[in-house]
Amino acid sequence: MSPSGKVYLVGAGPGDPDLLTLKAAKLLAQAEVVLYDSLVSKEVLGLVSRDAALVDVGKRAGKKLLTQDEINSLLVNFAQQGKTVVRLKGGDPLLFGRAGEEMEALRRAEIDFEIVPGITAAVGAAAAARISLTDRRVASQVLFTTFSRGETGNWLNWAAITPETTIAIYMPGTHYGEVAARLMENGLAAETPCVVMSQATRTEQQVRWSRLAALSDEAQLPAPSLLLVGKVAAQEIGSWKGQLTAGLFRQSAQDILRLSKVV
Amino acid sequence: MSPSGKVYLVGAGPGDPDLLTLKAAKLLAQAEVVLYDSLVSKEVLGLVSRDAALVDVGKRAGKKLLTQDEINSLLVNFAQQGKTVVRLKGGDPLLFGRAGEEMEALRRAEIDFEIVPGITAAVGAAAAARISLTDRRVASQVLFTTFSRGETGNWLNWAAITPETTIAIYMPGTHYGEVAARLMENGLAAETPCVVMSQATRTEQQVRWSRLAALSDEAQLPAPSLLLVGKVAAQEIGSWKGQLTAGLFRQSAQDILRLSKVV
Repeated sequence: MSPSGKVYLVGAGPGDPDLLTLKAAKLLAQAEVVLYDSLVSKEVLGLVSRDAALVDVGKRAGKKLLTQDEINSLLVNFAQQGKTVVRLKGGDPLLFGRAGEEMEALRRAEIDFEIVPGITAAVGAAAAARISLTDRRVASQVLFTTFSRGETGNWLNWAAITPETTIAIYMPGTHYGEVAARLMENGLAAETPCVVMSQATRTEQQVRWSRLAALSDEAQLPAPSLLLVGKVAAQEIGSWKGQLTAGLFRQSAQDILRLSKVV
Repeated sequence: MSPSGKVYLVGAGPGDPDLLTLKAAKLLAQAEVVLYDSLVSKEVLGLVSRDAALVDVGKRAGKKLLTQDEINSLLVNFAQQGKTVVRLKGGDPLLFGRAGEEMEALRRAEIDFEIVPGITAAVGAAAAARISLTDRRVASQVLFTTFSRGETGNWLNWAAITPETTIAIYMPGTHYGEVAARLMENGLAAETPCVVMSQATRTEQQVRWSRLAALSDEAQLPAPSLLLVGKVAAQEIGSWKGQLTAGLFRQSAQDILRLSKVV
């Protein structure tokens, strides 16, 4: 039996190819096989080596091309052929990316593998909208969750929502009204700020600032989208009633550094 | 008045310089001034242009070098001098990074600024430990939180944590026993898996797999550290009782692709 190759589960980030990690970019240039999801942007795919076999394992017109079992099997088989395989997933591979099943298959087959993290959608969206997810003046933690889960369509038990919890809802779909109703049932105020980010960090990016009570009236934005909810999602700083920063601008940069004995 | 420069709030990632984004690496090579925190690794600082003024604004021997007001003021002042300024923060700037106050100062001073996201500690640690944070078989969401918050030392209101919520605790300190007790008070089972990751993705990385009930007996690991708690944090796949992947390895990669009409 020939020596096994290696599988890299790589985060492709939110879309802007400049938000790939250096490590991910190097691996895309070196890979012999790249299996990618439909959420990966074409700009990121442009960084893949021209010699690599590029396999779309995602959805097309809403229909899955391959089952999860088939994808697992592909990873194992290509590695057993001695190939360097990149499994390229939108965002980060370990957040809502089904990496668990793929890692289990690779462990069972005793294939060497490594995880290369990526900028997850919520972090990319927050950067694009310039929202401090855990601004200590109004938030203490952030919950990354989904609107519904699995094929049952059951409501997720969010539980951990306090008014100081920022909520990042992945794949909110287009039923904003239902999401808003559920959050308000969970105790969030109707005036809680929220923002829908569509195709964040891509050239097609759209941002819709809203409030929970008004969310159901917002026009539907194209996928992939993400919903950020919480006090931090207010567009205008003034609405926070944050404390003024005292003493700001009084001294020059050089004075501050000299007085602080930093330089 | 001379035209203003621009401030980039840039995520330095968890420590491994290969986990910087392409955009962050480009900005470090171009910056005229770089203000960095103590959590930024020296390998990342090695990517900063030699011509740049490099200013340590973090802690030294546990003591703060500069107040937040002074840092805000530096950002504004350097930008008003027309400089290209990078504010480099460990992990991602918008997660537990005090970016909110810096963005407010920049807005007030009408300085142009941009956020460049980074790999946050929890995502870096999960990749290093190969933990699927939201493995759909055992977890539905992930909460990024801290052990205590601000200078009051008050307990954070985590609210109800469901057994299907993975918890990433930033800066858990060394009082593992208190953390474990608090989580069990919040309803988590004593046998819930957890892992302490110290200096994840760096050469000094250490990983300690444990259970909540045993956490207080674990030796203290060096900062920066992160605690991951939840069913996903089990080291051995077998402990999950996950479903076997049926039909795996039956077909060759080429057969799967041909039968699925992907190629």
